[in-house]
Amino acid sequence: MSMPDQTTTVAELREAMHRFVGERNWQPFHSPKNLSMGAAVEAAELMEHFLWVDNEASRQVSQDPGKMGEIADEIADVACYLLALCNTLAIDLSNAMVAKLAKNANKYPADKYRGRYQLDG
Amino acid sequence: MSMPDQTTTVAELREAMHRFVGERNWQPFHSPKNLSMGAAVEAAELMEHFLWVDNEASRQVSQDPGKMGEIADEIADVACYLLALCNTLAIDLSNAMVAKLAKNANKYPADKYRGRYQLDG
Amino acid sequence: MSMPDQTTTVAELREAMHRFVGERNWQPFHSPKNLSMGAAVEAAELMEHFLWVDNEASRQVSQDPGKMGEIADEIADVACYLLALCNTLAIDLSNAMVAKLAKNANKYPADKYRGRYQLDG
Amino acid sequence: MSMPDQTTTVAELREAMHRFVGERNWQPFHSPKNLSMGAAVEAAELMEHFLWVDNEASRQVSQDPGKMGEIADEIADVACYLLALCNTLAIDLSNAMVAKLAKNANKYPADKYRGRYQLDG
Repeated sequence: MSMPDQTTTVAELREAMHRFVGERNWQPFHSPKNLSMGAAVEAAELMEHFLWVDNEASRQVSQDPGKMGEIADEIADVACYLLALCNTLAIDLSNAMVAKLAKNANKYPADKYRGRYQLDG
Repeated sequence: MSMPDQTTTVAELREAMHRFVGERNWQPFHSPKNLSMGAAVEAAELMEHFLWVDNEASRQVSQDPGKMGEIADEIADVACYLLALCNTLAIDLSNAMVAKLAKNANKYPADKYRGRYQLDG
Repeated sequence: MSMPDQTTTVAELREAMHRFVGERNWQPFHSPKNLSMGAAVEAAELMEHFLWVDNEASRQVSQDPGKMGEIADEIADVACYLLALCNTLAIDLSNAMVAKLAKNANKYPADKYRGRYQLDG
Repeated sequence: MSMPDQTTTVAELREAMHRFVGERNWQPFHSPKNLSMGAAVEAAELMEHFLWVDNEASRQVSQDPGKMGEIADEIADVACYLLALCNTLAIDLSNAMVAKLAKNANKYPADKYRGRYQLDG
């Protein structure tokens, strides 16, 4: 089944996660505390792929189909926990993300932060 | 601007992130190594909200609008780094997530794992 | 070789780590950035052991010698990266920890925080 | 009070942590689940100091006394949670670390891994 980013809504991904959890009656395990731990565990597994390489070398992973598959899996794992948490707490992820980007745009004005991540860096 | 999950595609969120990064010329910082670290840092900040409470108490956060706003912000931060990583590595998140859920459905058959997260747990 | 906490100095543990790294010429990999990532990765693996259980159930792990061995290994992994980082940056861990406990004692006066982790919790 | 690594035993650091926790009656919060989360949260805060810099630049932090103080504090925070966890579960950290280094010495023979972190890397 192909569900590309171009045509898939966030609600459809949330619904897929909701079904997966519901079919297993896993809602009792899906407290916000546990789901946030799960997201952190999976984010660390994602990071482990890049532990010993330099920044530039980490970009070369795109040339390695095997590693790209593993990394896509880890990214998906983090996303699954995030969307499960949005389901548990009834948080709209798209609105939350657009609102956070607007906050960050104020915090990091483009003309001051162009090419730098801190002002005196 | 309202962009609810119901009608927002993952591609639209990726494009919003792409613009934010591009306007600041932050692509040089956005190596896979750095972005995976960013996701892990933000996932930990999300988790910190639930550090000292029990699982059941962590569900009560939904009654506290102030905390809900903070948690939505943290979830958004993790999502921003995930989508930036998908942009850097040209990974389709929706397809990755659907594929991972299919793998997990094989690994955790619903009839064996109903109500339990491990077989001998 | 038995090196119990009762008689082992932190310097002796640091020296053991220093030898391990030196015998493999791993100093070039041991940048503060990489070592901090390693500590975070191992801390997440430690945490994964307690992901789906409640707080009270997590205490029962002490009754399970197999799990206790795995957890001791994960704790050791985090400690190894911490001490390697202290070695790389020439930070005295004992002094740092005593100083931080003194700061925390000011931040959390015992009479106000007795039995609670926040004042209005 | 100066307690340098050279003369401080791990047991003395554990005892300092034990007193701090006991004076606040925080033992009920100190489940293995919570303490492992605390260690992961603090490890992420440590890592955040090195988020946007390259490996080589991260070594330069040793030239910046202000940052060195912050980093020493974060390292101490991780160590505090690790030692609190050892206290809760009655795990001897020094023995655990020496045992883990012996395992790792078998897993990564010095002659094969000299200067490399993986065999086909």
